[in-house]
Amino acid sequence: MVKVGIVGATGYAGEQLVWILSNHRYSKIEFLSTHNYAGIGFHEIYRNYSGFIEDKCIDLDQAHDSLENIDVLFIALPHGKAFKLTEKALSLGVKVIDLGADFRLNDKAIYESWYELEHTAPSLLADAVYGLSELNREKIKNCNLLANPGCYPTATILGLAPLLHHKLIDVSSIIIDAKSGVSGAGRSASIASLFAECNESIKAYGVAGHRHTPEIEQELSRLAQETAVISFTPHLIPMNRGILSTCYSSLKATISTEELQGMYKDFYKGEHFVKILDILPETRWVRGSNLCHIGMKIDKRTNRVIILSAIDNLVKGAAGQAVQNMNIMFGIEEIEGLKLLAMAP
Amino acid sequence: MVKVGIVGATGYAGEQLVWILSNHRYSKIEFLSTHNYAGIGFHEIYRNYSGFIEDKCIDLDQAHDSLENIDVLFIALPHGKAFKLTEKALSLGVKVIDLGADFRLNDKAIYESWYELEHTAPSLLADAVYGLSELNREKIKNCNLLANPGCYPTATILGLAPLLHHKLIDVSSIIIDAKSGVSGAGRSASIASLFAECNESIKAYGVAGHRHTPEIEQELSRLAQETAVISFTPHLIPMNRGILSTCYSSLKATISTEELQGMYKDFYKGEHFVKILDILPETRWVRGSNLCHIGMKIDKRTNRVIILSAIDNLVKGAAGQAVQNMNIMFGIEEIEGLKLLAMAP
Amino acid sequence: MVKVGIVGATGYAGEQLVWILSNHRYSKIEFLSTHNYAGIGFHEIYRNYSGFIEDKCIDLDQAHDSLENIDVLFIALPHGKAFKLTEKALSLGVKVIDLGADFRLNDKAIYESWYELEHTAPSLLADAVYGLSELNREKIKNCNLLANPGCYPTATILGLAPLLHHKLIDVSSIIIDAKSGVSGAGRSASIASLFAECNESIKAYGVAGHRHTPEIEQELSRLAQETAVISFTPHLIPMNRGILSTCYSSLKATISTEELQGMYKDFYKGEHFVKILDILPETRWVRGSNLCHIGMKIDKRTNRVIILSAIDNLVKGAAGQAVQNMNIMFGIEEIEGLKLLAMAP
Amino acid sequence: MVKVGIVGATGYAGEQLVWILSNHRYSKIEFLSTHNYAGIGFHEIYRNYSGFIEDKCIDLDQAHDSLENIDVLFIALPHGKAFKLTEKALSLGVKVIDLGADFRLNDKAIYESWYELEHTAPSLLADAVYGLSELNREKIKNCNLLANPGCYPTATILGLAPLLHHKLIDVSSIIIDAKSGVSGAGRSASIASLFAECNESIKAYGVAGHRHTPEIEQELSRLAQETAVISFTPHLIPMNRGILSTCYSSLKATISTEELQGMYKDFYKGEHFVKILDILPETRWVRGSNLCHIGMKIDKRTNRVIILSAIDNLVKGAAGQAVQNMNIMFGIEEIEGLKLLAMAP
Repeated sequence: MVKVGIVGATGYAGEQLVWILSNHRYSKIEFLSTHNYAGIGFHEIYRNYSGFIEDKCIDLDQAHDSLENIDVLFIALPHGKAFKLTEKALSLGVKVIDLGADFRLNDKAIYESWYELEHTAPSLLADAVYGLSELNREKIKNCNLLANPGCYPTATILGLAPLLHHKLIDVSSIIIDAKSGVSGAGRSASIASLFAECNESIKAYGVAGHRHTPEIEQELSRLAQETAVISFTPHLIPMNRGILSTCYSSLKATISTEELQGMYKDFYKGEHFVKILDILPETRWVRGSNLCHIGMKIDKRTNRVIILSAIDNLVKGAAGQAVQNMNIMFGIEEIEGLKLLAMAP
Repeated sequence: MVKVGIVGATGYAGEQLVWILSNHRYSKIEFLSTHNYAGIGFHEIYRNYSGFIEDKCIDLDQAHDSLENIDVLFIALPHGKAFKLTEKALSLGVKVIDLGADFRLNDKAIYESWYELEHTAPSLLADAVYGLSELNREKIKNCNLLANPGCYPTATILGLAPLLHHKLIDVSSIIIDAKSGVSGAGRSASIASLFAECNESIKAYGVAGHRHTPEIEQELSRLAQETAVISFTPHLIPMNRGILSTCYSSLKATISTEELQGMYKDFYKGEHFVKILDILPETRWVRGSNLCHIGMKIDKRTNRVIILSAIDNLVKGAAGQAVQNMNIMFGIEEIEGLKLLAMAP
Repeated sequence: MVKVGIVGATGYAGEQLVWILSNHRYSKIEFLSTHNYAGIGFHEIYRNYSGFIEDKCIDLDQAHDSLENIDVLFIALPHGKAFKLTEKALSLGVKVIDLGADFRLNDKAIYESWYELEHTAPSLLADAVYGLSELNREKIKNCNLLANPGCYPTATILGLAPLLHHKLIDVSSIIIDAKSGVSGAGRSASIASLFAECNESIKAYGVAGHRHTPEIEQELSRLAQETAVISFTPHLIPMNRGILSTCYSSLKATISTEELQGMYKDFYKGEHFVKILDILPETRWVRGSNLCHIGMKIDKRTNRVIILSAIDNLVKGAAGQAVQNMNIMFGIEEIEGLKLLAMAP
Repeated sequence: MVKVGIVGATGYAGEQLVWILSNHRYSKIEFLSTHNYAGIGFHEIYRNYSGFIEDKCIDLDQAHDSLENIDVLFIALPHGKAFKLTEKALSLGVKVIDLGADFRLNDKAIYESWYELEHTAPSLLADAVYGLSELNREKIKNCNLLANPGCYPTATILGLAPLLHHKLIDVSSIIIDAKSGVSGAGRSASIASLFAECNESIKAYGVAGHRHTPEIEQELSRLAQETAVISFTPHLIPMNRGILSTCYSSLKATISTEELQGMYKDFYKGEHFVKILDILPETRWVRGSNLCHIGMKIDKRTNRVIILSAIDNLVKGAAGQAVQNMNIMFGIEEIEGLKLLAMAP
């Protein structure tokens, strides 16, 4: 039984973690820590747990003091907040799975440039493993510090990996136009996230400057074995959950849509969570699940390939992949706690 | 292992059944029958099943011929379509759980008056058991023909039962104002159910004439041991799932909100799926689950009680309760396959 | 040309006022005052005005100093904030239209009991006119202080007035179950109003305690010429705009639905903004307009009448009716600036 | 007074036409023709018109017979249906504004290839004018047959025109990722457009094959004076209205975002309906209006420019631009009937 602590438990990703772990047979939540709701029952914030999970949340100090009781610490905090906690946990032999961005980028300077703050735990970067489970499984098995990928990077990198692996595209031509539901903006009171401000509208944000850009570039470069500089444009969609990443790039070879689908099916052969579709994905078919649906189309007129990749931003894009990684790190069957399919409608 | 057949598998309630049963450890789906999609893979209609449930649907004739292979038949068809199938199944010793309305009303004449068609299997009515699990558990255990309650009746009757049991209200004063998500209208192509016609609007429908009225009255009358004639007004809400039933009635006694909550908690003591809240329910906290959340308020100024009852119309209001009933009928633990809580947001 | 000042211009009702008045031929906005955005261009908060209305907002002190330049002051502030401003404006001969609750209730004690604060301008209450335009037109013509009705009261009172006028119902039997879009919660940053908290859910709030209750009771009592004590339950619906008020009461006479529709059509004969439908109303058909759609149904089984009344909460329920009242107060054609019908879909 | 006939009046674009023209001071609707609702009052289909526009719809044959009474015919039919009607109207001296695709492509062969049907009125193509009002105003003034642009092309071409005019981009690099509300799918009963199928999801459709592709290419090529072959990917968004077109292309010159904004402001100087923003557009700020909001960003890292262009698909993307074109064709002030700004929220 893996003993788990969660810091940032009342954010949307944190709550999703609680949800998944409460259906996981080989883990046990030891504490739920939160910045704003210490002393309050978890079910008073998320009423779906009424009668089921009614533990009182603890604050961050109490979390620090409770690290000795756990095997793994999930951190679901804003960037810049994980440094000290991670250092302490690791020093106590507690494995860390950070759902934030603090250990995703290998290069301290790139982190500091994009996130505009000092990285105070740079010595940990060398050993942090980027937890895109399907692509990095071997390294994940033995790591102590796992950097759980961002939501947009998860969808995008899974979508582009086979193209890069087979060197089918011009790496400099990659354009990623991504769309996310509003839960991606987090659970903090802001006018921009109000129902009446988001509903019945769509907008782009962070154009040419979103912080997931260097993360995607780092991993695509690794896969391509050359430096990838990409365009990445996220959009906000009036729905609770879901990411669709539409990726464009120029082909270096001639290939049909069907051949490419075959290549993708081979690449992800045996993967439980990645499904290659003969049609185009829709986020509703993965909502609430840890699955990634990938569809594709070759456009002969422009000699471009368009890849469409859909995930649930809170599951495969956050808490679900975090649990998948925990399973890998602790030798548990990888799909434990993650078997559910999307519920329609 | 209970062998299951599903007729009407591609409607929203039918699909929800498939979803739940695919997470049920002691049942096995033998066939999926459908009116419009025979010969087509189930995953081609519901893409969430791609790579998991790819069985071809069969037509109704094939379903008739396959009844001998199953232990229980779930029927999720429009009213008036279950008569023959039920007769045949029962004659073969197959238990029947009808999610439609054909066996819910004890009185043939009332059925024919409200549904405006002839009931051709009236001899079965006497043995049909109304499957509101929490209120009728003993009868359900041994029944062969289970009439699964309608979505509005489930929320409403669970909400009002303790009041009637304790004879706290004037039965003639009951007014039920209910609200449902659009999945309640079913998965058939109609202009009235188009996104652009339902979104950003609310309406009442079936005022003073909705077919769930006699069903609610029948069960409330049974509980009250006197004839209940009610006002029932359903409304359509721009959301996929969820029912909130707001019930008003005049008190015959003086009681505080807290005392009433205590009385409700006693009434539903030990029930896994019914939770009495100290606050008001919201449908999001039960969405996707088999739970019913009930809140209440005494209005001293008017001497009325207001009961608010929330369910997921496709789960506790249809497929979930159907599986709960199957579990009871087959001696399986009642919560098997139904342990999930609502996923937020 | 009526010179207008608006205080609270950046809330949803305030902005709607700006929108309507910018299409009004005989008024001119002199200033836009706001608590949070003083010094900022109105178009920087509401981008729909980019290139059209780019005036800088002023703060409340500046608004006080600008009262001499205007003919009428619209106040769209939270309750309790209008007292001083109103006193000063009236003393300068400026007419006041308060969209808040501070002058709606005739009785200081009732105000203080429901709003839980001291009413510091009680001497103004006697002269304040309750601005339900269709029912109070003559008094509105000559008033200096107009209390613009709340959104729920507007829909509800218009829906019930003919019944009370004709003494058709038992006043003690009135139950009002109302539903509103999220803009009714205002434009302040709160977690409860976030998209991901409101979307895909419905809830009741303020059960047996909402502050619109005494306002509705006051006006229904006036119409009925007897004291009305009502049950009023508002609900929050995942849509931007719209109110549907479903009203139940017991009939004292026998009347058919058709006869009642005829009676309503007579009562509202000649009214531009109130339409009696032969079918049931839907909020989408009045969204963005100053119209009120009323439908009805006699339920013979229970001898109750069900009235359904739909408005746009920000237009007829706030800014639209405020402009309608301004038109009446200044002798302008009543429909000026308010001719638009709902835009579908 | 321009006498107007509308064919296809009960589709979403047709209804929007009726709405706009009912607020237009110099036009008069002579007939409303419809395929499915002949003999039915327009207000019975669109209840927002109850009490205002209650004319009975006529069928297509009656429309043919009524052409002599009008000055201009608006056709809002599916592609392939406008040929005969246009020929007859023109022969009678009636100007035609076709909101469909039948006269947008100059080249009969391209039309037939993309729309997969025979063009039976090719002789009219030479004189048809592509009605992107801001770019083609002079030709529109004197034309008799106006091909009203598609919704995606309107947003996209307005967004890219200045770049092409100034030869700033590599024409072969253009990628257009567009997003539309569900009203773009039209008002026909289809399961794919049901609320419960579209809500809480996003998908791409028509990837590398959407029929707006050749239309966009034709006009971009004209502007660029070289052949443009583009990638165009539309997506379906769970909202009623709105299009956001996100356009990517590689720069041939070095220019800053601010310089480019200045260039765009010059290009659209004096245009009432096109606004160049210093921030990023959101569809809610143009919803219900005839405006196009354009924002932009230079990505120095990739040397690409990203243009974001937002319109209301039913107004500037259909009926609004059609009326704008009518105004130009008949010498009416161009903004007549189109002065409204977006209503928020």
